[in-house]
Amino acid sequence: MNRVESSALDPAIAAMLKRNADGLVCAVVQDAETKDVLMVAWMDDEALHRTLTTRKGTYWSRSREDYWVKGETSGHTQYVHDVRLDCDGDTLLVLVDQEGAACHTGDRTCFDADSLF
Amino acid sequence: MNRVESSALDPAIAAMLKRNADGLVCAVVQDAETKDVLMVAWMDDEALHRTLTTRKGTYWSRSREDYWVKGETSGHTQYVHDVRLDCDGDTLLVLVDQEGAACHTGDRTCFDADSLF
Repeated sequence: MNRVESSALDPAIAAMLKRNADGLVCAVVQDAETKDVLMVAWMDDEALHRTLTTRKGTYWSRSREDYWVKGETSGHTQYVHDVRLDCDGDTLLVLVDQEGAACHTGDRTCFDADSLF
Repeated sequence: MNRVESSALDPAIAAMLKRNADGLVCAVVQDAETKDVLMVAWMDDEALHRTLTTRKGTYWSRSREDYWVKGETSGHTQYVHDVRLDCDGDTLLVLVDQEGAACHTGDRTCFDADSLF
């Protein structure tokens, strides 16, 4: 699948986004119930459009250069409750119901490693 | 103040970091008590070193091209409880006690805007 050049994202929302040089905004994914920060990924306009319209967490993979729906292969899906844009428009907070592990390592979150202290 | 080229950051930690093209990692800042996601900022090695050694949330401003200690001018300081690196080494989760507003707009968090739904 190729990067979508012209997305159907609501123009009012698109106008609020401050994308980086690669056309992406940062997405912080938080468990809606436990409030654990699960993972951080990236979205372009189309990934955000798909997330908002399907309620399935959908991101742009910078390494694979493709869209991915969280859980599509692992079954560890994310039902999206809410999406909020930060004050300067370059970061999204995505509140989800996480099925199973959010991290590709099998950990519940991507931040389950030891403290740096 | 100029960007520090050679940081005193613990080499074992430095070796784990996967920096972007600008030498930065993403820092998600979370309230240690309420678990609200407060803000997202960026750190280079030196900002992380200062954060770990002073327990004051310290970041690299991409717009001002300078280090900044959260609350240094506003008084809205962040006492850092913990710092965790994510599974692929490009994002930090910073758990803090936030004094006052975390957002420069005066809001408690940078994500206090309306839902995108």
